Amino acid sequence: AMRMQVSLREISWLLFVFFSSDIEISRAQSPKAVDVLAKEIGLLTDEIEIYGQTKAKVRLSLLERLKDQPDGKYVLVAGITPTPLGEGKSTVTVGLVQALTAHLNINSFACLRQPSQGPTFGVKGGAAGGGYAQVIPMEEFNLHLTGDIHAITAANNLLAAAIDARILHENTQSDKSLYNRLVPVVNGVRGFSAIQLARLRRLGINKTDPKTLTEEEISKFVRLDIDPSTITWQRVVDTNDRFLRRITVGQANTEKGFVRQAQFDIAVASEIMAILALTTSLQDMKERLGRMVVANDKKGQPVTAEDLGVTGALAVLMKDAIKPTLMQTLEGTPVFVHAGPFANIAHGNSSVLADKIALKLVGEKGFVVTEAGFGADIGMEKFFNIKCRASGLVPSVVVLVATVRALKMHGGGPNVTAGAPLKKEYTEENLQLVADGCCNLQKQIQITQLFGVPVVVALNVFKTDSPAEIDLVCKIAKESGAFDAVPCHHWSAGGKGAVKLAQAVEKAANQKNSFKYLYSLELPIVEKIRIIAQKVYGAQDIELSPAAQSQVDRYTRQGFGNLPICMAKTHLSLSHQPERKGVPTGFILPISDVRASIGAGFIYPLVGTMSTMPGLPTRPCFYDIDLDPITEQVKGLF
Amino acid sequence: AMRMQVSLREISWLLFVFFSSDIEISRAQSPKAVDVLAKEIGLLTDEIEIYGQTKAKVRLSLLERLKDQPDGKYVLVAGITPTPLGEGKSTVTVGLVQALTAHLNINSFACLRQPSQGPTFGVKGGAAGGGYAQVIPMEEFNLHLTGDIHAITAANNLLAAAIDARILHENTQSDKSLYNRLVPVVNGVRGFSAIQLARLRRLGINKTDPKTLTEEEISKFVRLDIDPSTITWQRVVDTNDRFLRRITVGQANTEKGFVRQAQFDIAVASEIMAILALTTSLQDMKERLGRMVVANDKKGQPVTAEDLGVTGALAVLMKDAIKPTLMQTLEGTPVFVHAGPFANIAHGNSSVLADKIALKLVGEKGFVVTEAGFGADIGMEKFFNIKCRASGLVPSVVVLVATVRALKMHGGGPNVTAGAPLKKEYTEENLQLVADGCCNLQKQIQITQLFGVPVVVALNVFKTDSPAEIDLVCKIAKESGAFDAVPCHHWSAGGKGAVKLAQAVEKAANQKNSFKYLYSLELPIVEKIRIIAQKVYGAQDIELSPAAQSQVDRYTRQGFGNLPICMAKTHLSLSHQPERKGVPTGFILPISDVRASIGAGFIYPLVGTMSTMPGLPTRPCFYDIDLDPITEQVKGLF
Repeated sequence: AMRMQVSLREISWLLFVFFSSDIEISRAQSPKAVDVLAKEIGLLTDEIEIYGQTKAKVRLSLLERLKDQPDGKYVLVAGITPTPLGEGKSTVTVGLVQALTAHLNINSFACLRQPSQGPTFGVKGGAAGGGYAQVIPMEEFNLHLTGDIHAITAANNLLAAAIDARILHENTQSDKSLYNRLVPVVNGVRGFSAIQLARLRRLGINKTDPKTLTEEEISKFVRLDIDPSTITWQRVVDTNDRFLRRITVGQANTEKGFVRQAQFDIAVASEIMAILALTTSLQDMKERLGRMVVANDKKGQPVTAEDLGVTGALAVLMKDAIKPTLMQTLEGTPVFVHAGPFANIAHGNSSVLADKIALKLVGEKGFVVTEAGFGADIGMEKFFNIKCRASGLVPSVVVLVATVRALKMHGGGPNVTAGAPLKKEYTEENLQLVADGCCNLQKQIQITQLFGVPVVVALNVFKTDSPAEIDLVCKIAKESGAFDAVPCHHWSAGGKGAVKLAQAVEKAANQKNSFKYLYSLELPIVEKIRIIAQKVYGAQDIELSPAAQSQVDRYTRQGFGNLPICMAKTHLSLSHQPERKGVPTGFILPISDVRASIGAGFIYPLVGTMSTMPGLPTRPCFYDIDLDPITEQVKGLF
Repeated sequence: AMRMQVSLREISWLLFVFFSSDIEISRAQSPKAVDVLAKEIGLLTDEIEIYGQTKAKVRLSLLERLKDQPDGKYVLVAGITPTPLGEGKSTVTVGLVQALTAHLNINSFACLRQPSQGPTFGVKGGAAGGGYAQVIPMEEFNLHLTGDIHAITAANNLLAAAIDARILHENTQSDKSLYNRLVPVVNGVRGFSAIQLARLRRLGINKTDPKTLTEEEISKFVRLDIDPSTITWQRVVDTNDRFLRRITVGQANTEKGFVRQAQFDIAVASEIMAILALTTSLQDMKERLGRMVVANDKKGQPVTAEDLGVTGALAVLMKDAIKPTLMQTLEGTPVFVHAGPFANIAHGNSSVLADKIALKLVGEKGFVVTEAGFGADIGMEKFFNIKCRASGLVPSVVVLVATVRALKMHGGGPNVTAGAPLKKEYTEENLQLVADGCCNLQKQIQITQLFGVPVVVALNVFKTDSPAEIDLVCKIAKESGAFDAVPCHHWSAGGKGAVKLAQAVEKAANQKNSFKYLYSLELPIVEKIRIIAQKVYGAQDIELSPAAQSQVDRYTRQGFGNLPICMAKTHLSLSHQPERKGVPTGFILPISDVRASIGAGFIYPLVGTMSTMPGLPTRPCFYDIDLDPITEQVKGLF
């Protein structure tokens, strides 16, 4: 169990810092050494791997040691449909655990996602929380951290390179030549590697001596016979590089004319990121990596990473990434950082493993607070239907984050754009806009209630919000079915500003909980998509493109029909049209394409024209980012 | 100063392990905790940042603390022209420091390069040394290490994305719109960022208030006016992905038709890797990153990373990578791992900073042993003319590594190919082939002597080498001007097997040293290329393609004529033709293209058809790589 020590120094320093940027606030508080933190929360010395002074990876052996410990309460922070600026789910998550642990003396853990470097250097900035509710040091959190996303990128791209190289080699060599190269004589002996023996077994060839295969068996063994037009595995970078959205590869002479169109996705959209978030053990991760389908062969059968012989190498590249990273909040309480964001084009939830370990560490009366990206219609829906299915965990409470700013936008306020100053509607009291916009809050509450979990609304208060606006939101939220609705001031006051939220969450966690999934896995793929579209988004119906329909048919035929659904949909509207705010109705949701992430374990429909690669704006964040070469301090990250 | 403790256990365990693979040997010896190692070599607690149990980054503040300490002796390990299998320079480097420290009680440090994941999962395998002369744990060394190459990849690709995005934004917006976006109103105030003020000063616009710029000044400020056909900055991945050798980018509709041909290089060929290796401080690194030229504008003027506003962000991404990583040999002696390989398409030397710190740590009587990639004609030539110029350090001794295998190949033996069994010429005694092949050894000795540094030949002995073959090589080496020539058995016997080498190196280090560079920087670019081609490679002359000549003219005009030269040439021959072994003569060296790495500080001629992106073979290394999910052990890395 945890024995958190929050020192007077850690609390009282708040009195000394007043007008400061996020990074200045982060820097003003020196984090305790991570080994001290680890000891406070009950970890043994050999259960952590320290990375610098302030980060440590936590070994999975912990789960085995604590397996008889009862789990704590499990809280999900979700949100209303956000503006492009974000409404502060991360700050609420951090503020809530600071309140629970540092102010109410209840063990708690925040489980956050590692930010992508795309937005950090692109348009949105980092994701460490902000103000007095941050993960520190925020520059470590926002940069390479412990390298998980880099490991995912390396693994993803090794597989991509293996696919194209294999097609080239098969196209330019005879069966015999392929066989001689794939099964070479080493020190006078010719033998199959373990992964090749496994492939032989899958092909129904029960032989282990390379000399005994018939010509037909050799041909079956050496040819994956990938149909290049069916390749769904894409390369990734963790950079907003819009020019890689559609490319042609293979144009050097050495590739002998085998050109094809391809694309790069942002790294956090990689299926390997989804696997990292959903896996429950090293064994499970390795099996999932091997199951990933990258293309079909010319007979329409799925070709997997395992067929390409790369499962073991992928697992090796991911062996450290599977361990959650331990950090701390500004008030010295523990945080796990694991897996990645982008609940629009991925499932965008932090990891099952981090949540499970944290639930053991906090003990039965403790709280684990995790976060689902963007609005509850996407991040939370995926949390329940995908992540909770993978983990078997049952959430106790949903905290739904709202801001007066976003509600005014839903009520008909002018456009909110990153980089442009806010219009006066957002900085002056306007009760009508707030009242009109609460339809979105009400809808997101209703969505939460579909899953049978009590919901507490957290109004993330900005200094320009008026008391009347705040009261109005809380009143409407409670009338709409929220268990409670509480204004929060963690940004300006740290954990102290979220004590009322913490009390409401604690109370809600003791409510009767009738958690249920939204759909049965046994339903046909199209039916599952329709249920999400109608019950969650409020669509009138769905419409599949011919390409999408044919993919659905193929996946069903291949036996992948019983997977949950991970929708790729804009986060800026409940519908597929980002400009439609509030609660859009009467729309037909267009499904332009359907992919399958068999290793992660979900079907992945693309709604409308979703891009899986963000771009850099005219003036990216990096203009303000700098390093002082003398003090080694980072400036301009936020 | 260092106080190395090599325990009896650490030496005696060698008696227990006999027939084992590299990774089994690596695993059989448990490394001491890196903080223990750090203490032994005299580091203070706040001078290291621990990454797991066996790796630590070392802070540059150390250089300031030890600045009055005299440097140790500086030894470079180079080689003869290798077979595609490599001749064991890394094992010699590790064996030599093991002999010096663990057996002769002389402080020493090995400074190695971080392996690229391309070869590790591709065709060549890792680079931790081998047998009983390894860096341990070898799987850590060969995988992500402390993330330096990932950081380089991230920085390199952020800059690449910034170039294309900027061209798009300039092409689709008016001056006014660009200006409004580049210099937005934030909280009611419009101001330039620091990097924009620096650009204004470079443009001769001495204004700080955005309201006061004239239309002409605004246009100059907002338009970099990059000529897309002159872009030399390429994207990188640390994967052998041959299909990215030539690609077309920008083919999505959102990029509005601004397609262009581009390419990915292997990450270790990035100019940022070269900068990491050559930089001397954080300040220096930041300035070099800003100076990198990525293209020309339409008037023929260079456009830099600084012009794109990205210098600070690149420095932030590289702030940890600049710190060398501390690891250890199998016999517990210290190793720095820093910067990357590929002396054919990069300069391929480990870092100046690691060498400088190590030279202080070993003290005046100690030895620092570093390694230059491939044959002395490329790795060593670049070490002297580029790296020693950047560092100001003077090497004491060159160790030239030879194998009977490679000499037989140079004497006319059959092809040596990775993955194929060696022909009998290589496994049975053949004195004639050895004698004939020693011409390559002789030539590489002569090349070393051009630089005025004593050379000791290290014959890396394989179990199939006969005593007569070994004696013959040593005899010819000494007749050819080597200070000494010593057979080494470090692979099978660890440091003990390299004691004679260590003694010879110690003696050679006390010889008179008349180190000199090969050429003066003041010479024209073409003249410097010709000197390398003729004096080092033995070419009759050089021949520049029209493209190469026009690049030379441009760089000279732009004021970059006084930089040293970094040749991109095959490592498999002294000439540009990989199949020409021994000492080729009478060839004209073709210079197909010339690039400039202004931040790293060299001109980069491409010789013949050098590829900057390796490919995956039919059966990549990854077929043998696996992870045991129960023990968490890695198999098949070598």
